[in-house]
Amino acid sequence: MNAPTATAHLLPEIALRPVPQALLDALATRFGAQCSTAQAVREQHGRDEGSLQAPPPSAVVFAQSTRDVQDAVRLASEHSVPVIAYGAGSSLEGHLLAVQGGISIDVSRMNQVLSIDADDLTVTVQPGITRKQLNEAVKDTGLFFPIDPGADASIGGMAATRASGTNAVRYGTMRENVLALEVVLASGEAIRTGTRAKKSAAGYDLTRLMVGSEGTLGILTEVTVRLYPLPEAVSAAICSFPSIEAAVRTTIQTIQLGVPIARCELIDANSVRMVNAHSKLGLREEPLLLMEFHGSPASVREQAETVQEIASEFGGNAFEWASTPEERTRLWAARHNAYFAAVQSRPGCMAISTDTCVPISRLADCLLDSVHEADASGIPYFLVGHVGDGNFHFGYLIDPASPAERSQAEQLNHQLVARALQLGGTCTGEHGVGIHKMGFLLDEAGAGAVGVMRAIKQALDPKNILNPGKIFSL
Amino acid sequence: MNAPTATAHLLPEIALRPVPQALLDALATRFGAQCSTAQAVREQHGRDEGSLQAPPPSAVVFAQSTRDVQDAVRLASEHSVPVIAYGAGSSLEGHLLAVQGGISIDVSRMNQVLSIDADDLTVTVQPGITRKQLNEAVKDTGLFFPIDPGADASIGGMAATRASGTNAVRYGTMRENVLALEVVLASGEAIRTGTRAKKSAAGYDLTRLMVGSEGTLGILTEVTVRLYPLPEAVSAAICSFPSIEAAVRTTIQTIQLGVPIARCELIDANSVRMVNAHSKLGLREEPLLLMEFHGSPASVREQAETVQEIASEFGGNAFEWASTPEERTRLWAARHNAYFAAVQSRPGCMAISTDTCVPISRLADCLLDSVHEADASGIPYFLVGHVGDGNFHFGYLIDPASPAERSQAEQLNHQLVARALQLGGTCTGEHGVGIHKMGFLLDEAGAGAVGVMRAIKQALDPKNILNPGKIFSL
Repeated sequence: MNAPTATAHLLPEIALRPVPQALLDALATRFGAQCSTAQAVREQHGRDEGSLQAPPPSAVVFAQSTRDVQDAVRLASEHSVPVIAYGAGSSLEGHLLAVQGGISIDVSRMNQVLSIDADDLTVTVQPGITRKQLNEAVKDTGLFFPIDPGADASIGGMAATRASGTNAVRYGTMRENVLALEVVLASGEAIRTGTRAKKSAAGYDLTRLMVGSEGTLGILTEVTVRLYPLPEAVSAAICSFPSIEAAVRTTIQTIQLGVPIARCELIDANSVRMVNAHSKLGLREEPLLLMEFHGSPASVREQAETVQEIASEFGGNAFEWASTPEERTRLWAARHNAYFAAVQSRPGCMAISTDTCVPISRLADCLLDSVHEADASGIPYFLVGHVGDGNFHFGYLIDPASPAERSQAEQLNHQLVARALQLGGTCTGEHGVGIHKMGFLLDEAGAGAVGVMRAIKQALDPKNILNPGKIFSL
Repeated sequence: MNAPTATAHLLPEIALRPVPQALLDALATRFGAQCSTAQAVREQHGRDEGSLQAPPPSAVVFAQSTRDVQDAVRLASEHSVPVIAYGAGSSLEGHLLAVQGGISIDVSRMNQVLSIDADDLTVTVQPGITRKQLNEAVKDTGLFFPIDPGADASIGGMAATRASGTNAVRYGTMRENVLALEVVLASGEAIRTGTRAKKSAAGYDLTRLMVGSEGTLGILTEVTVRLYPLPEAVSAAICSFPSIEAAVRTTIQTIQLGVPIARCELIDANSVRMVNAHSKLGLREEPLLLMEFHGSPASVREQAETVQEIASEFGGNAFEWASTPEERTRLWAARHNAYFAAVQSRPGCMAISTDTCVPISRLADCLLDSVHEADASGIPYFLVGHVGDGNFHFGYLIDPASPAERSQAEQLNHQLVARALQLGGTCTGEHGVGIHKMGFLLDEAGAGAVGVMRAIKQALDPKNILNPGKIFSL
C-alpha cells in the first residue's frame, strides 16, 4: 500500500509469509476442483463483516471431510504456511483476514447433522452447518438450538468465537452449550475433546479452551451442542420508554428479581428511526425493550406481568404483545435488521461496532455515560444491546474515507472499553478479539494472562500456522 | 517399602525429587511459625479421603495471602521442588499426595469473603473458605451458593477439581459457576482470569482451563463464583421403588420431560440398610430416590406432581414429603452420611469409589449391568448417584489388607468405565483424575488429547513443580 489508509493503521505491521508455488501445486493435486485460486473466491474468503481489510489468502480449499481438513493442514504445515478456517464469513473483528498470508479452509460444505440424540438433548454436527440449518434439521424432535447471534453463522464459527446473542440471557453462550468437539491440530492430527455426558472432571477442559480460540489452536471438524425443548408457550412484548435510563433500569430490576426472561434487547431511538425507515415500520421512536418469555403458559404470564409492573414503575408505556409466531417474527426482524438499517441510513458509511459487557448492576453507569459521549461527538450512531446480559453494541457510522471519523469512533470505543473494564466488565461479550481488540485484551487480561495464552499457542502450534496474528501478536 | 502392597502398585513408579535443606531453611526464614515440618502436620497434608498413599511432603506452608503463595512457589521453583496446594483435604483420587515429594501449601487460612456483589449474584472469596462458610457469609443477602459435593470442601479445591454434587442437575458444576480467578503460576507470577461480566469472548478461556486442572497449572488464590436467589419454595420428597431399574427409569423420564428438578439422588437398598444402621433411621430398605424441588410455590407443586405421576407409573410407592427445613435436613443427612455409614458397615474396610457419568438415555444400560457385575462379585458395595446428571458412584468396600479384593474392585471399576465410555460417557463426572484415573483418562480422551494437556502443562510449568504426577504421567 502506498498511502496508509485509516484502516491500515489498525493492522499489526507483520510481513506476509511466503506461500510457495509447491504448496499451491500440492493442494491442486490433492484437492482438484475443491481448491480455488480464483481472485473472486480468494477475496470473498479474505474478509469478514468487520471494518478491517488485508490482502486475500493465496488459495481456498473447500473441505468436505475431517480428512480433507487434516490433509490441507498437513500440506500447509510442511511449508509453514498459515491456514484460516472459514465458515459463514459473518465474524466482525477481522478474524478471517489473512494478515500473514496463507490459505483459507472453507468448511461450509461440511454441513451435515451427524447424530441427533433427542433423548439426551444433544446433537452432533459438522462445523459448516448454520444455526438456521441446524434448527430446521431438529425441528421434528420438538427441540431447538437457542443460540442466536443474529447472523446465520456457522456452528463451527460460533464455537470458535464463543458467540451468543439474543437468547443468551436464558440459555447461555457457546461456552455453556458446546459439550464436545473434534479438532484438527496444527500437526494435522485430529483429537476429540469432551463427551456427551452432561458433566465431567476428566482432565483439562480442552472443549472450553477451543471454544473462543478463534481458529488459533485448532480447526473444529465436529461440534456436539445442547438442545432444549421448544417452550410450551412463547410470548414477545415490546415496550417503549421515555429514556434509555428507564429501559436499562427496568432491565436491571428484571434480572435482579430472577425473572427467567429469554430475550431482553434494548433498541435506542436512533435505531428505531433507522429501522422504521428501512423496514417501513411504525414503531414509536423512543428507546424500546424487546422481550421474549418462554415457559409454561402460567409461567410466561407470570414473567410478563412482573416485567410489565417493573416497566410501568420506570415510565414504560405501550406494552404491546406479540403472541403469534408471525407477530413475533415481525418484531424480531426489526431487531435483527437494525445493523443493516443503520448502515443504510448513511449511504456509503461503515459501522464500527463495540461489544462491552459489564455486571448487570453497572449497566446503567457504563451505558449512559457512553451515550453522552457518543451524542457529544456528533458521529451518527445506533445502540442495540443484549442488556439482560449487560452486553450492548454501539455502532458508530463513519465515512470510511475519513481518517478523522474513524479515529474519533475508535476513541469513543476506547473510552467505553476503559469504563467497562473499570466497572468489572469485558471488552468483548460475544464478538471475540480477532485483530481489532488485541489492544483491549491486553488492557483487560494483563500481560501475564495474555502471556499464558501465547505460551499455550506456541506449545500447540510451534510453526504459528493456525490463524496467526489474531487475539495477540505473534 | 519392602513388599509391594495392594496400594503401591497403583502409584506410578516415580522417584521422589530432592527437597534441599536450603529450601526448608529459606521457608523457615520467610514463613516462621507459618511453616511446619512436624511429622503429624506433614502426614495430615500428604493424604486425602481416597484409598492411595504416598510419603508425606517435607514441609507445610500455611499461606495467609496471595503474596505468601507467590513467595512459597518462587522459593520452591528456585529449587525445582514440587508444590501441592491443600484446601480441606477432601479430594478422593490421590490429588494431594506428594508422589514426587515436595511441599504442601495449605490455603485454609485464606478463607475470607472479599466481596459480596449481591446485585450481580456474584461473590469473590479466598480459596480456603469452605462451601458451608461461604453460605453462612451470604445468607443475609437472600442468596446462596448451590454447589454441594457432600464434603464441606474448600471453594478453591472444588474449583480445582471441577466439583459438583447433588444440586448440579439444576445449577451446574464449578465449570458453569466460576466466573473469574486469581491464579499464582509456576513462576510465582499472579494473573487474573475472567471478569465479573456474565459472558465474555475475550481470548482463551483461562478460567475454564484452570477449573479442573487439579493444581497442575496454577494455585488459585481468589475465586469469583455465581450466587442464586434462595428459592421461594423448597420441597423434598423420598420415594422407594421395587427395583433400581424403576428408580432409574423414573429419573430418565423426569429429565427428558424437562422438569427443573434441583436434586435427584439414587440410594440403593444396600446404602439404605447401612444408613438405617448408622443413623438409626427406619427407611424402607428398597432403592430410593431423594428429590428436591425449587421454585415458586406453584412451580414446586407442579414439578412434584409430575414426578410423582412418573414414579407411580414405574411402581414407585410411599412418596413421602418433607417441606420443613428440619425434615429436609434429616433426609439429606441420610444421603450425605451414606459414605460413612457404608464404611462403618464393614469394620476396617476401605471404599474404592467409582465416578462414571453417561448421557441420561444410557443411564439404565450403564448402571444395571454394573449392578449385576457387582452383585456377582460378592464384594460388599453401596451405590449412590446424582442420577439426574447420569452420574453415580459405586463404593466397593474392600479389606485393605487383601490385594485380591482390591484387584477385584479395580476390575469392576475398569468394566464400569469401559461400559460408560462405550456409551458416550466419562470416567469421572466430578471427582477428577488425580492419580487413580490416569489410565482411564487415556482410554477416554485418547493419547492425542492427553498429549495436548501435557504440552500445555509443559509450556506453563517447565520445571514441572505444580502438583506433578497428577492427571497424566510427567
